[in-house]
Amino acid sequence: MDYKKRSIELHKKYQGKIEIKSKVPVNSRDDLSLIYTPGVAGPSREIAQDKSKAYDLTMKGQTVAIISDGSAVLGLGNIGPEAALPVMEGKAVIFKKFVGLDAFPLCLDTQDVDEIVQTVKFLAPNFAAINLEDISAPRCFEVERQLQNIGIPVMHDDQHGTAVVVFAGLINALKVVKKDLSKVKVIIAGAGAAGVAILKLLKSAGMKNVLVCDSKGIICSHRKDISRNSYKQTIIKTTNDKGKCGSLQDALERADVFIGVSGPNTLKKEWIKKMNSKPIIFAMANPNPEITLEDATQGGAYIIATGRSDYPNQVNNALAYPGIFKGAIECRTKKITPKMKLAASYAIAGLIKKPSRKNIIPSILNKKTHEAVTQVVKKAV
Amino acid sequence: MDYKKRSIELHKKYQGKIEIKSKVPVNSRDDLSLIYTPGVAGPSREIAQDKSKAYDLTMKGQTVAIISDGSAVLGLGNIGPEAALPVMEGKAVIFKKFVGLDAFPLCLDTQDVDEIVQTVKFLAPNFAAINLEDISAPRCFEVERQLQNIGIPVMHDDQHGTAVVVFAGLINALKVVKKDLSKVKVIIAGAGAAGVAILKLLKSAGMKNVLVCDSKGIICSHRKDISRNSYKQTIIKTTNDKGKCGSLQDALERADVFIGVSGPNTLKKEWIKKMNSKPIIFAMANPNPEITLEDATQGGAYIIATGRSDYPNQVNNALAYPGIFKGAIECRTKKITPKMKLAASYAIAGLIKKPSRKNIIPSILNKKTHEAVTQVVKKAV
Repeated sequence: MDYKKRSIELHKKYQGKIEIKSKVPVNSRDDLSLIYTPGVAGPSREIAQDKSKAYDLTMKGQTVAIISDGSAVLGLGNIGPEAALPVMEGKAVIFKKFVGLDAFPLCLDTQDVDEIVQTVKFLAPNFAAINLEDISAPRCFEVERQLQNIGIPVMHDDQHGTAVVVFAGLINALKVVKKDLSKVKVIIAGAGAAGVAILKLLKSAGMKNVLVCDSKGIICSHRKDISRNSYKQTIIKTTNDKGKCGSLQDALERADVFIGVSGPNTLKKEWIKKMNSKPIIFAMANPNPEITLEDATQGGAYIIATGRSDYPNQVNNALAYPGIFKGAIECRTKKITPKMKLAASYAIAGLIKKPSRKNIIPSILNKKTHEAVTQVVKKAV
Repeated sequence: MDYKKRSIELHKKYQGKIEIKSKVPVNSRDDLSLIYTPGVAGPSREIAQDKSKAYDLTMKGQTVAIISDGSAVLGLGNIGPEAALPVMEGKAVIFKKFVGLDAFPLCLDTQDVDEIVQTVKFLAPNFAAINLEDISAPRCFEVERQLQNIGIPVMHDDQHGTAVVVFAGLINALKVVKKDLSKVKVIIAGAGAAGVAILKLLKSAGMKNVLVCDSKGIICSHRKDISRNSYKQTIIKTTNDKGKCGSLQDALERADVFIGVSGPNTLKKEWIKKMNSKPIIFAMANPNPEITLEDATQGGAYIIATGRSDYPNQVNNALAYPGIFKGAIECRTKKITPKMKLAASYAIAGLIKKPSRKNIIPSILNKKTHEAVTQVVKKAV
């Protein structure tokens, strides 16, 4: 039976995946007097005098909100807040399992940027950090930007979690093919949340030759269809110095790396043949990648990574976000910075001592990955 | 050491009182494929086609939001969202312990009625019900009113939980003194959230002779200071047929029942002497009641109930709200009705087979109470 059917059965059996548990004993009238009235007036009064004590005296200090508007869920698209809940509960399970954080899903019944921003501000007192999730581009950029100064770290995982793990894989892939990070030509297919964040991270890591393509081809200054799209205009400013125009196929000529964060079947095997020697193919569309493993191999791909768990080299953002949030919370930073993200990428890559074609990225189930990310993010403040 | 100090230590030790736990196994790549991608697309797609399936496939079906704005917390007043968190966590612990519901605290960083209402609407997809808590009057009335049609039950516990338990105690107290519910004269001291809700419930139960006093005395049509206070005007319309004016002391002449939901030391023992025989005194202010147990006894009180756990007859809304929400959720009602509240009161009262002066109300720790409330609320739809 396939994953989806089995997953439906699992969700029915347990009625979702997470529950709230008490950490304290509740067996006597005395216990009740400590956790509720009259005793609870003690911690409440302490916090009233000094808000920061909420970190020590309440759940706030280790609780993350997973906020979505259900507008860009998996490959399913705009399916709304209720349908997004299983995904967010899954993320909460992963948070607890790998770094011990308590994460709670809140799928909002609005897709208006200002309303999302205001709602998150109102909710902030309860949380140590905010994980934005599955909010479609370009709204996700604006939501995240407006929430950078609310006093707790806010990160849109579809952007930065994905970027961190892609770059981690790329570090090791380049080691395998013995190419220099600052010299390779990289093509990013997909100019949504993930594509934009990957671009930013690669640039901050010192990669210079990066082109971004959307469904119409290379993003360049000659394109009239995107002249009013402010975030695509930003892409133009930071890429494509030579003003190259054309299709994805054109872009791939003499490229070293293809990073697909677009949709199924957008990469043809013939195009890989035009890339430089030992082509690196990251086909990340989920659940169906930009090219099948078979076609990519036939096209001459030397290293292939996907988001799938049944292929080698699974590039999954669950490798990054638990440790990034844990580290950010432990050092009480107010923002998650590019420096932290780069440190996370290098930490993940570093867990593979001898990278090889089919082993460029560690397993999600390896607790050491999450510990390593936590530690470097803490220190990168 | 006193409760408050011990409570601070407990909260520090556990860093709050609740945590998020996974209900599902997470030990293998296969497990991950079911709880997260790619399997989770199965339940998400099911819900996208039929929202109501979120009740079976996600946490929604048994999760309650505890929403506060931190404006009227315990006896501490307007201490803000962070300081309100320990109280809301305490409620969440009680929800889980007594009826197995998963409740999550969300203390909002706004005290604007429209903003609270809108935020709750945006959050509704994640929850089976909403428990409003510690929102000051008169805003609490408007917030609750505007949220009655959002498709899931919404109840302000400071109003209705308190009213249900007070009436439960009163049913048994009247049995002890052998007085008729429809004939006794009741004085409610306090015209805030609890006072107004108690008034409504007593009226719906058939009590006719009820007067409400605020800090300035009896609420009557001659009072100019409340001529623009719309909810006090509503009190005038449903009480005080004879247009009696005067002080609380005046009101208590020949009264049978005093219900205090005001503040400490507002009732003098001399005033009790002017009440009818076998006076019933509910002094509910927390943590310091309207009159001490000693003074009430000296004044001639026949039955005394308070909110305190160290006195007999503890009238605590934790007797009511867990079962009310559990019952409402189990029958998937969209509103919590007066009929349900009355049924809850009679169920709680019914657990004391032979009421006596010092035994009019069951213990919070008695699981049978919560089961009984759940069952009658379910049937009262």
